[in-house]
Amino acid sequence: MKIAAPLALAFAFSAFSAPVFAQFQKPEDAVKYRKAAFTVMANHFGRIGAMANGRVPFDAKAAADSAAIVETMSKLPWEAFVPGTDKGETRALPVVWTEQAKFKEGADKLQAATAQLNAAAKTGNLDSVKTAFGAVGQSCKACHDVYRKD
Amino acid sequence: MKIAAPLALAFAFSAFSAPVFAQFQKPEDAVKYRKAAFTVMANHFGRIGAMANGRVPFDAKAAADSAAIVETMSKLPWEAFVPGTDKGETRALPVVWTEQAKFKEGADKLQAATAQLNAAAKTGNLDSVKTAFGAVGQSCKACHDVYRKD
Repeated sequence: MKIAAPLALAFAFSAFSAPVFAQFQKPEDAVKYRKAAFTVMANHFGRIGAMANGRVPFDAKAAADSAAIVETMSKLPWEAFVPGTDKGETRALPVVWTEQAKFKEGADKLQAATAQLNAAAKTGNLDSVKTAFGAVGQSCKACHDVYRKD
Repeated sequence: MKIAAPLALAFAFSAFSAPVFAQFQKPEDAVKYRKAAFTVMANHFGRIGAMANGRVPFDAKAAADSAAIVETMSKLPWEAFVPGTDKGETRALPVVWTEQAKFKEGADKLQAATAQLNAAAKTGNLDSVKTAFGAVGQSCKACHDVYRKD
């Protein structure tokens, strides 16, 4: 019992001190999830970009639909950057975990920018969409430059 | 010009006759996108399942957040089942493309079920969530049994 009690305590502590792991059974699941959220976000951001850059005609409804998805997706990946998930099929650099406050700041900026994009897209005004699209793009790039392998 | 004109016409035709390809530059992009949407959907469906099955305490806010994401995701993958994307890193069976009407019926059923789940989760009633969760699960399984490799 002298051994078992501390072990039980340690187990209980680890179970309760890592709630961020709760949604992912294995580290690979967290990596897969965050990459999936980024993939869906990037695809819909690209659809808006094609309109913002004039490659395809502006479709206000399609832009608004995609902007809503971009905003929703921008909230998801962050909880999946759990400690120990800098290995395997990921381009996330260790600096994600050593500069967590700055990383969170970048994530918050993205979410603010995607909320603006969603609001702009709802107005149906292409110029507003273009401006908001540019801001989201800068926010993406700011983090990719620092936290992601090329 | 006798050669160029038909070629130009063929190119124009192919460009306009395949709008479903418009959102994906390559077949692999379509596969990656639909898998990503399913991954995000499955993760959040699993979070609700953990509550519905009593593995984790019911958190009405978390369940509602996840149900909204599940409903949003359930609308996305279908446009990415473009012809020619039955190869590579996919478990989609050829029957997806040979039974398109039935496949669409299954996709529609899923979307109806996830809308119900979202509505149930908004009420904050666990029993309603359990019922709606079961219906979504049956809808997932019905298609996986027929359209997806094990």
